[in-house]
Amino acid sequence: MQTDYGRAGVDIDAGHEVVRRIASLAKTTFTPDVLSDLGTFGGLFRFDATRFEEPVLVSSADGVGTKIKLAIMAGRHRGIGHDLVNHCVNDILVQGAEPLFFLDYLATGRLVPDVAVELVEGLASACRANGCALLGGETAEMPGFYADGEYDVAGFVVGVVDRRRLVDGRSIEPGDRLVGVPSSGLHTNGYSLARRLVFERAHLTIDSHIEPVGRSVADAFLEPHVSYLNAVRPLLMDGVVEGLAHITGGGITDNLPRVLPPGTQARVDRDAWTVPPLFRWLQEVGDVERDEMYRAFNMGIGLIVVCRAAHLDRVVATLAANGAPGACPIGSIVVGEAGVAYHD
Amino acid sequence: MQTDYGRAGVDIDAGHEVVRRIASLAKTTFTPDVLSDLGTFGGLFRFDATRFEEPVLVSSADGVGTKIKLAIMAGRHRGIGHDLVNHCVNDILVQGAEPLFFLDYLATGRLVPDVAVELVEGLASACRANGCALLGGETAEMPGFYADGEYDVAGFVVGVVDRRRLVDGRSIEPGDRLVGVPSSGLHTNGYSLARRLVFERAHLTIDSHIEPVGRSVADAFLEPHVSYLNAVRPLLMDGVVEGLAHITGGGITDNLPRVLPPGTQARVDRDAWTVPPLFRWLQEVGDVERDEMYRAFNMGIGLIVVCRAAHLDRVVATLAANGAPGACPIGSIVVGEAGVAYHD
Repeated sequence: MQTDYGRAGVDIDAGHEVVRRIASLAKTTFTPDVLSDLGTFGGLFRFDATRFEEPVLVSSADGVGTKIKLAIMAGRHRGIGHDLVNHCVNDILVQGAEPLFFLDYLATGRLVPDVAVELVEGLASACRANGCALLGGETAEMPGFYADGEYDVAGFVVGVVDRRRLVDGRSIEPGDRLVGVPSSGLHTNGYSLARRLVFERAHLTIDSHIEPVGRSVADAFLEPHVSYLNAVRPLLMDGVVEGLAHITGGGITDNLPRVLPPGTQARVDRDAWTVPPLFRWLQEVGDVERDEMYRAFNMGIGLIVVCRAAHLDRVVATLAANGAPGACPIGSIVVGEAGVAYHD
Repeated sequence: MQTDYGRAGVDIDAGHEVVRRIASLAKTTFTPDVLSDLGTFGGLFRFDATRFEEPVLVSSADGVGTKIKLAIMAGRHRGIGHDLVNHCVNDILVQGAEPLFFLDYLATGRLVPDVAVELVEGLASACRANGCALLGGETAEMPGFYADGEYDVAGFVVGVVDRRRLVDGRSIEPGDRLVGVPSSGLHTNGYSLARRLVFERAHLTIDSHIEPVGRSVADAFLEPHVSYLNAVRPLLMDGVVEGLAHITGGGITDNLPRVLPPGTQARVDRDAWTVPPLFRWLQEVGDVERDEMYRAFNMGIGLIVVCRAAHLDRVVATLAANGAPGACPIGSIVVGEAGVAYHD
């Protein structure tokens, strides 16, 4: 009796076919700096250092968490690609960096070529929208590790910023204002709690219509994470940004303080924006305490820009003119202990 | 009744504690180019472009596959960190690149702080050995996604090479010689098949002693992936490398052809080195065909250096003097169809 590798669960030829399809999708994202004809084991990116006085590479790794479970239930994977790229791009944008290239790691129990390709179509599409090359990645079949039909995916982005343009929040001072930029939904955070509320508490299915939200569970919860690159880039060029906070796991409560210098506190006026119906419905269904909501979810604000009061109107107008029409003032910086103080 | 985030399976405070411990481990890897006091959302790395004529960034993403299952069975996670870093470092080394920084993605069902910290100790130790900064990473709790006690981990590396020093195999020509550099074991490939042979065919446990190998299952199969950086760097400086192949999934059979120019074939003399007992035992236990073995496993050769015949002795001697004493000639490049032709 023969034991061969194929029978042990790893189909190398099927893997090669997916790699070929992925490679042709990746090519659609290539910027002139990608040395596309040379890559064999690793992706190659020509770095034009002449564009910078003192270039700083900024890098981040991320996943999309258990949102993947919903994508699998709904059989929709393209949006997960957008989620992953946009989350990564935002994580380096808040330091002032432009993305250069992106790589992914996709792990499955058994590779389903159509799922992998749909996911990478999403990655490639989001990379093109962010002007970022999908430079490479790893597709791993791990039989007996992930349940059939399940997968996990991680992303990794590298960007660059000139050191003098680095955004790190150090210049933030009392009197500065906070501008909230709308999220498109939960983005990629809070899905463990959300899934519990939707499926165990409200007893809905992935196709159920959520009356107060006006959308199906799949549509509402699979809305992709927004990239703030194109909206925020003009502000960075304009030099009017003192700090940027990407509102991810931990909500405004945990993420905004990460950019505040010692002795400063963020005062957030929760009346300043309308919490979208999806978050209000989740809170009601789960009878979740309000503070817990602001720590588990973004509550409708995906990014916060900190600017001088004198620049407030300019910041809001620039964001509005560049794809973020719902941006609005949501609070200010005051003297105080580190953290966020909510006012209603 | 309250539903809170902690009870839904994601313990944000436990996460913070691990993040703090990981951060202090990461600091031990920081090179002078890491802007360590500035990082908030993404890692910052000052890129000294003056060291290069035309810098090319080389990047790779990898996992360690189902070797993790064995690590979990044995309760040993440090080596997985070495596996991941060394695999990534080798993948860019074969293009001639030196690693600059590394990031990881660790996903679990429920975070076990000691496991995460042990894993990151391995990552940090391997990063230090490779002179590469552990710049950041993501630790994701995904309840209901990974089985209790299980995890997956992916790594991303960014390195740099001057364009004129890029190794891409284009200069390889008939008459060139192949030098095989020993692996330490299976490295990170072939574990789905290996686990099946060990546990289902040979009915061993993780603690069983494998008589012909002289080691326990855990010791033999958890031996970490070797980094070839320090052995190969002097050859790159010396300019005697025409091509490099990292022998990973697909074995010599699939990996060596990836660097060969059209019209050339690799002739590999399988008598030239002694296949280590672990591979021989696996082949016997599973009654695996020899060709299948050379496609599933590295068979004792983790890296192949292609060099001019005139440089052969120098290459072997340099490798021997820099931590790879077992390196030896294993074949040559001939005119022929793409692929590997084995001779015995």
